[in-house]
Amino acid sequence: MEKKLKIGMFGFGCVGQGLYDIFTKTDFQAEIQLICVKDKSKKRSIDASYFTYEKDDILDNPEINLVVEMIDDAEAAYEIVKKALLKGKNVVTANKKMVALHIEELVEIQQQTGTSLLYEAAACGSIPIIRTLAEYYDNEWLYSVSGIFNGTSNYILTKVIQENLDYPTALKQAQELGFAETDPTADVGAFDPLYKLCLVVAQAYGKFIPPQEIFNYGISSLAPQDIQYAKEKGLKIKLIAAVSKVEDREITLSVMPYFVDAKHYLYNVENEYNGVVVEAAFSDKQIFIGKGAGGHPTGSAVLSDISACRYDYRYEYRKAHQQEAISYTRHYPIEVYLRYQDERDIADIDFYEISEQHIAKEFKYVIAVISLEQLFELKTDLPQRNIFIANTGRRVAREVLLGTLENKIAVSDFI
Amino acid sequence: MEKKLKIGMFGFGCVGQGLYDIFTKTDFQAEIQLICVKDKSKKRSIDASYFTYEKDDILDNPEINLVVEMIDDAEAAYEIVKKALLKGKNVVTANKKMVALHIEELVEIQQQTGTSLLYEAAACGSIPIIRTLAEYYDNEWLYSVSGIFNGTSNYILTKVIQENLDYPTALKQAQELGFAETDPTADVGAFDPLYKLCLVVAQAYGKFIPPQEIFNYGISSLAPQDIQYAKEKGLKIKLIAAVSKVEDREITLSVMPYFVDAKHYLYNVENEYNGVVVEAAFSDKQIFIGKGAGGHPTGSAVLSDISACRYDYRYEYRKAHQQEAISYTRHYPIEVYLRYQDERDIADIDFYEISEQHIAKEFKYVIAVISLEQLFELKTDLPQRNIFIANTGRRVAREVLLGTLENKIAVSDFI
Repeated sequence: MEKKLKIGMFGFGCVGQGLYDIFTKTDFQAEIQLICVKDKSKKRSIDASYFTYEKDDILDNPEINLVVEMIDDAEAAYEIVKKALLKGKNVVTANKKMVALHIEELVEIQQQTGTSLLYEAAACGSIPIIRTLAEYYDNEWLYSVSGIFNGTSNYILTKVIQENLDYPTALKQAQELGFAETDPTADVGAFDPLYKLCLVVAQAYGKFIPPQEIFNYGISSLAPQDIQYAKEKGLKIKLIAAVSKVEDREITLSVMPYFVDAKHYLYNVENEYNGVVVEAAFSDKQIFIGKGAGGHPTGSAVLSDISACRYDYRYEYRKAHQQEAISYTRHYPIEVYLRYQDERDIADIDFYEISEQHIAKEFKYVIAVISLEQLFELKTDLPQRNIFIANTGRRVAREVLLGTLENKIAVSDFI
Repeated sequence: MEKKLKIGMFGFGCVGQGLYDIFTKTDFQAEIQLICVKDKSKKRSIDASYFTYEKDDILDNPEINLVVEMIDDAEAAYEIVKKALLKGKNVVTANKKMVALHIEELVEIQQQTGTSLLYEAAACGSIPIIRTLAEYYDNEWLYSVSGIFNGTSNYILTKVIQENLDYPTALKQAQELGFAETDPTADVGAFDPLYKLCLVVAQAYGKFIPPQEIFNYGISSLAPQDIQYAKEKGLKIKLIAAVSKVEDREITLSVMPYFVDAKHYLYNVENEYNGVVVEAAFSDKQIFIGKGAGGHPTGSAVLSDISACRYDYRYEYRKAHQQEAISYTRHYPIEVYLRYQDERDIADIDFYEISEQHIAKEFKYVIAVISLEQLFELKTDLPQRNIFIANTGRRVAREVLLGTLENKIAVSDFI
């Protein structure tokens, strides 16, 4: 049964305009009633009658049955979305941070009010990963979901690794092309993919994990030495968000740079593209690749959600209702390449199974196993120490962490 | 609202057993009531009480609300599916040939009876391409959908090109691994991907095109010379099914070998994997890669459809209800590499814009533009003449076909 949509829109930036383009260029049947924007002085590309500056003009309007929220401010977005759902309106949002921070509460409100909260555009741009996980993999116990979730940082990594651009130039290019979010640290600091990972985990495992509980590490301390190292080994560096099963009902999560070789499915995912790899028992490995940044891909995802609202589609979070609870752990070993400047910077880090260490005046690194929990505890310190970390991608047996710390690196021995 | 499923299954081959495995190994809540099989003498891996040899034991059983059809015989499958739908039962099928041949009628019955006919497993194994096209791209006017839709032929091509296996050995390997369909000519003769293309077009464009109206050409006449040619140019040969927009409301279709270079997204899709590239105005290019053959990937797709039946999901074919009809044309130029044995074999072929011709005793080929319509007319003749054809993938302006035939190749001039 198709429903007539009367839309109240929040925000009219890059994505909002992309969406407006789609509305006017295709024969999609829905009505934009009102657009709420903040900046009164800004010139608008469409008729002034569309705009309001009062959010309640939309939220208190009983005619509007769908709120499309596309503003940057996560806290303001949260207030809008919460009120809209409580007022019985369906909501489509592109705000990953807001959803990630409040998903448990918002899903509860959705259940209570019988409304629908959709957020395909909040994760991986044009790749329909949320819908696919919600619908297609709703019965499968997934081994892992991992991928390049952030177009901006992938664009920068592509440029610095393949085209030898320096980091600031590459970042500037990404911003000029409109890929970078309003605050670039969300991208290069790996917060943007962190929020997206939370949404993916909610759908893939029915588990709501607060973003602040997850280790995320970006690419802002990437140095020419790291790039040189990767190139010499025939590797690329990709910022990868990953959730994977470690035990029967236990998962672990992280967002961090990885070394990937030419055989890896994400190796050729370049520039602003995103790529997602889903591994499952029965459907085996599947790869989804698509544009991850820019107004049109995101607008397209929003449109798809809007369209689904015509048929009262909602995410069911079926896996959240399964009997056996899934637990989340950071007590999990990973092997990392860790490049540092001064041995004092790593003196307080416990390494297990060191397989390589290189010490030169301008280039010091160690390749060793470390506990994700420890990285998590150090996560605010590491960037200040100008440490770059990349997961080697090699799987480590969990038992490593049970061993003694006798392998702990004693850097002074080497000097 | 979740519905209790009582399942009647037809067939218990590779896919059926894969599905049974999934049912027993996951906590999926549905009941297999009865399995209809043909061969009474065959030993079964599960209890005999599950089996019947009379199809009406299932079709006339009012308790059974879902028929899962997984038999090879397309005509028998058609009778089963039609009757099941008419009896008000939902149907999940993996039979691409049956659906492709009867889709228009079956969709009509689905509408009339309010039932649901789902066939994700009939196209591209574990890749959720049908659902994605049906749901996610239901508003977008797509530029093209193309891909490797057949795991068996891709496995063979991988082995003969990358591992220098000869064709019969590679085919035998594929059969031993259980990838090849009961009749291998369906795979290597490009019928299997042809049927899948029909399903994709139904979802992507809302257009029901009979498979016999489409040019399909397989890899059975592939010769060592063709492989050598591709390798020397750094190309791979992939069997690609494609639908693309040629004018505003006009599409063209084909299934044939293509040369692809290292930059092509399907270049690294190897072995039994399938890959699909969707190009759209707003979401841009998206790539889906996953296992295309084998019991578990297909079983997984069937399971996903079964799960959707619990929520009364059905394909809506929204694009079929759009006002402006889409037309299908074969009057479209493509550039091909055409390897032949004797000049008399190509004497009746009209070429436009010949860009290359090579004539040696053991290796003769021409690279030229040809009309898809002409290839279609010759399609049963070409294999008998032992001609191998590969699309070069270069796009040709449609106007080429409007020119005179003065460029027509006169092979005798060269000899």
